[in-house]
Amino acid sequence: MRVAELSRRSGVPVPTIKYYLREGLLQPGELTSPNQARYGDEHVRRLKLVRALLDVGGLSVAAVRDVLETMANPGKSMFKVLGTVQHNLAGHVPAAEGEHHETASRIAHELVERHGWQIKPNSPPLDSLIASLGTLIELHGEDLLELLDAYADASQRIAAFDIDYTRRGTDRGDAVERMVIGTVVGDAILSALRRLAHENEAARRLHSG
Amino acid sequence: MRVAELSRRSGVPVPTIKYYLREGLLQPGELTSPNQARYGDEHVRRLKLVRALLDVGGLSVAAVRDVLETMANPGKSMFKVLGTVQHNLAGHVPAAEGEHHETASRIAHELVERHGWQIKPNSPPLDSLIASLGTLIELHGEDLLELLDAYADASQRIAAFDIDYTRRGTDRGDAVERMVIGTVVGDAILSALRRLAHENEAARRLHSG
Repeated sequence: MRVAELSRRSGVPVPTIKYYLREGLLQPGELTSPNQARYGDEHVRRLKLVRALLDVGGLSVAAVRDVLETMANPGKSMFKVLGTVQHNLAGHVPAAEGEHHETASRIAHELVERHGWQIKPNSPPLDSLIASLGTLIELHGEDLLELLDAYADASQRIAAFDIDYTRRGTDRGDAVERMVIGTVVGDAILSALRRLAHENEAARRLHSG
Repeated sequence: MRVAELSRRSGVPVPTIKYYLREGLLQPGELTSPNQARYGDEHVRRLKLVRALLDVGGLSVAAVRDVLETMANPGKSMFKVLGTVQHNLAGHVPAAEGEHHETASRIAHELVERHGWQIKPNSPPLDSLIASLGTLIELHGEDLLELLDAYADASQRIAAFDIDYTRRGTDRGDAVERMVIGTVVGDAILSALRRLAHENEAARRLHSG
């Protein structure tokens, strides 16, 4: 197909496709003349993956290039690829070194240890957790922290499902796409479900007196 | 205390305090002269609650006034108060009536029914759920929806803890504050914990072969 058709089928505008080609995010098509190239289904799929990484995952162009290179390297295991994506996924707040940073950091590390989790010291979500805990302590004291273990247990159960699901990808590209979409859209779905579950729980207890 | 001291203790600037007084979000102090008022600890607490609702919960000034009025009405049950807050809490995406809206809506309603949840038809998080499911379907097809029941079960468990926790508030203001902070900061904490659990799960399976 020509670039116009590629644009129509992928929903990505032609100038954006050309930009991805220049940045190495999209493999070149087969040249049919010095100014024209032919594209295939693999280009449609790649565009879908790139959009998922950029728009849904919030990765930078450099990070997307990094992920694509890791994916293309047969020496890298699937978990290595997923690790590279996970590390770059947006949604983490850098830990402000606020008043409660030290306390929050201690609580986060104790939680990780208590649950026997294997986490790298520079893991971005660990920073996010510390930042959120700092906010919690600042707003309400350490009181609400009692809920942490319940949250961690629930997260662990969910993560096992997520990883099983990711591994069922038909190939590396599919698995990466599943992980990005599952992680990012999954956050929004979990947030909505928790609020619905609050509503249900409150309604149930209200009616039972 | 004078307004300057109230500002220092609450961390809220004096002009903002005056704005809250005009908007009825803060009860007036005791007048000691035509231009001076005296404030007490209850004003510090109220400011903390108002900031939690506005800044953390993302409520509008009108919605905060609504919550405060419901709280002050002894005829309203605690669950009614919490329902008013929950209904106004930010973080929900309005459901775009996209291509997949009908499918997403059917899936969401079937999920709610399958879990026996008591949810009002106009519940904002139901709209958010439908919107997120629509995005998921658009990006990856209905495939990832298999995870929904696992997510709903985990959310239900978490919500039971959350509601227990909220009910331990020392009074209505404290309970509302717990709910707002727990819901909003809780989203960030859960998101971080899920990513950490992904990292752990991947590391564990990588090492075990």
